[in-house]
Amino acid sequence: MLDQQAAGGPRTSGTATRGETVPTVPPASTAADAVDVTALLERGRTLATPVLRAAIDRLAPPMDTVSAYHFGWIDADGNPAHGDGGKAVRPALAVLSAEVTGAAPEIGIPGAVAVELVHNFSLLHDDLMDGDEQRRHRDTVWKVHGPAQAILVGDALFALANEMLLELGTAEAGRAARRLTSATRALIDGQAQDISYEHRDRVSVEECQEMEGNKTGALLACASSVGAVLGGADDYTADTLEKYGHHLGLAFQAVDDLLGIWGDPVSTGKQAWSDLRQRKKSLPVVAALAAGGPASEQLGEILAADAKSSDFENFSEEEFAARASLIEAAGGREWTAEEARRQHTIAIGALDAIDMPDRVRAQFAALADFVVVRKR
Amino acid sequence: MLDQQAAGGPRTSGTATRGETVPTVPPASTAADAVDVTALLERGRTLATPVLRAAIDRLAPPMDTVSAYHFGWIDADGNPAHGDGGKAVRPALAVLSAEVTGAAPEIGIPGAVAVELVHNFSLLHDDLMDGDEQRRHRDTVWKVHGPAQAILVGDALFALANEMLLELGTAEAGRAARRLTSATRALIDGQAQDISYEHRDRVSVEECQEMEGNKTGALLACASSVGAVLGGADDYTADTLEKYGHHLGLAFQAVDDLLGIWGDPVSTGKQAWSDLRQRKKSLPVVAALAAGGPASEQLGEILAADAKSSDFENFSEEEFAARASLIEAAGGREWTAEEARRQHTIAIGALDAIDMPDRVRAQFAALADFVVVRKR
Repeated sequence: MLDQQAAGGPRTSGTATRGETVPTVPPASTAADAVDVTALLERGRTLATPVLRAAIDRLAPPMDTVSAYHFGWIDADGNPAHGDGGKAVRPALAVLSAEVTGAAPEIGIPGAVAVELVHNFSLLHDDLMDGDEQRRHRDTVWKVHGPAQAILVGDALFALANEMLLELGTAEAGRAARRLTSATRALIDGQAQDISYEHRDRVSVEECQEMEGNKTGALLACASSVGAVLGGADDYTADTLEKYGHHLGLAFQAVDDLLGIWGDPVSTGKQAWSDLRQRKKSLPVVAALAAGGPASEQLGEILAADAKSSDFENFSEEEFAARASLIEAAGGREWTAEEARRQHTIAIGALDAIDMPDRVRAQFAALADFVVVRKR
Repeated sequence: MLDQQAAGGPRTSGTATRGETVPTVPPASTAADAVDVTALLERGRTLATPVLRAAIDRLAPPMDTVSAYHFGWIDADGNPAHGDGGKAVRPALAVLSAEVTGAAPEIGIPGAVAVELVHNFSLLHDDLMDGDEQRRHRDTVWKVHGPAQAILVGDALFALANEMLLELGTAEAGRAARRLTSATRALIDGQAQDISYEHRDRVSVEECQEMEGNKTGALLACASSVGAVLGGADDYTADTLEKYGHHLGLAFQAVDDLLGIWGDPVSTGKQAWSDLRQRKKSLPVVAALAAGGPASEQLGEILAADAKSSDFENFSEEEFAARASLIEAAGGREWTAEEARRQHTIAIGALDAIDMPDRVRAQFAALADFVVVRKR
């Protein structure tokens, strides 16, 4: 899975064409390299999905059906589907984190499901707020079932997430619910920042990363610790796992931002130059604008004109490609790839502060590697 | 506050003109009659508001400002306002319920604030889903700040509600959070039913009451028990208080449905014949349709034609007044007033199952009386 040869060689990300944007990452350890990440993701998915489905079945009609559509279990006509349920990194992390404490991975399941529910609540609402019509190669819920159902079902998933934890009735579940609530608050703060940045001419790299830490880092932090909390971990252990997850989230988002511009639409399920079409001030863009120099200045002028353009929606492929080239020439692509590697290193390093079985540590490292080298 | 003279006399609700729709209610007891309900509501408001304001201050901009607008603390331009913060029945119930256990009313405050936050989360989202442009005499949040902010700030208030309870970190708070989550789930179920009923020709009285139990009963049930739960009440006591609150909610909603048709716009802050304009299948309407007889049948034909009318929005005052008269002639108004009285009686009777100080019992009864005789 890891391109070890490239790790010591020249960086390929600065000159990659679309579909080859992933930063090369040195494996955290030989142990991590030996981990079967596909099996690890599959374990999380296999453990969490039946419980997630049972939770969704608790919803009153038509919210159960709308949710099933959102999760890809049925199509818009209600026929069974085998949709792309996503990468399932969060459930894999949640059940793995239970093992930090020596507990069985199953202990993490309610946490895995709660985190997935919160994640999907935010997708439902964000897609509506942002006017996004496609997700995972399919029409978004508000496009198919209308804005009211997107709001309502999002609310229901959020409530269900709390229910999953609180109905356990234990002190550990109360602590887990509290951490999940903090993560959800951060998620909402991040969306508020994202919306406000759309109306601004300039966003700093720091502001962008704060937003991404809230939108992505907080919930990955929760996913990385929730199983441990349910397994009785102390606050120091939980905080350390959250630190791993937070930086993993920043790495994840840096890669997402690369894929949002240079990702292969066949892999990502999004339109080509997706983030540029949405005028998104993502990490490569803000880094390019902050870099200074001729390409950076030219990019600034073009994006300022774009912001005022009434014809932006009709721009050609070539026009978006030209903007992507400028971002790359200004160093925004390479900076973001380097940032993904940097956050990946911090994430794995954070785990040194706590004890856990070697196998579990290697699996955390392997999941971090996966997040950074994924193509979708 | 109570019209004792009318209590034994002829029912006025069947013949009342607009603004005189409230059912006459015999006082539950002389003790209840002696309670200063205004002071009781004021106590809840005084205890809860500073904590609610501090909670809202935790929100990142612009969510704090949007919330402050929603709560009536500032106007659309951001200037301080002294808006109508609502009747404050829920906070009064929450702090009162703490006293059931012998605890100080202050023990109920986090519960009062959490319930208010959930209530206002649902208002923000429901107003957007329903397209309601006015609430409490003011433009709704989505009209002033846009749909995205209404979604986002609603989400933030929901998350903050959980935070208020879970950050207490006690087993009692965990139990309270679990009950609040159940109530929120019911609230969402009720909104789902409300939306689905809009697309149906007929809704039964039972379906209407199930929806109202979810939309109004569940959260009033939680408000009526949350202080007691925080004060250490056992499940039987909490369930009993929830039963009081649930039936109080049904009484509350029956009165709301009367006010939604015959309420005085000056008092309610809504348009005249508000619920008829929205084609709402509220209790007086479904009861009138279920009653049978000439007026009921005529009403059914007219409403069926209205449902298909493309000109409905331009109907005159007289046309709505004619529909209201038919509902009244079919017995829908009187049935709903009687139902408010019936639910009021069940609510107060439920409290007989548990011990509590006489003063507290009288105050619960007085709040129930208030809910049923209010004019807004």
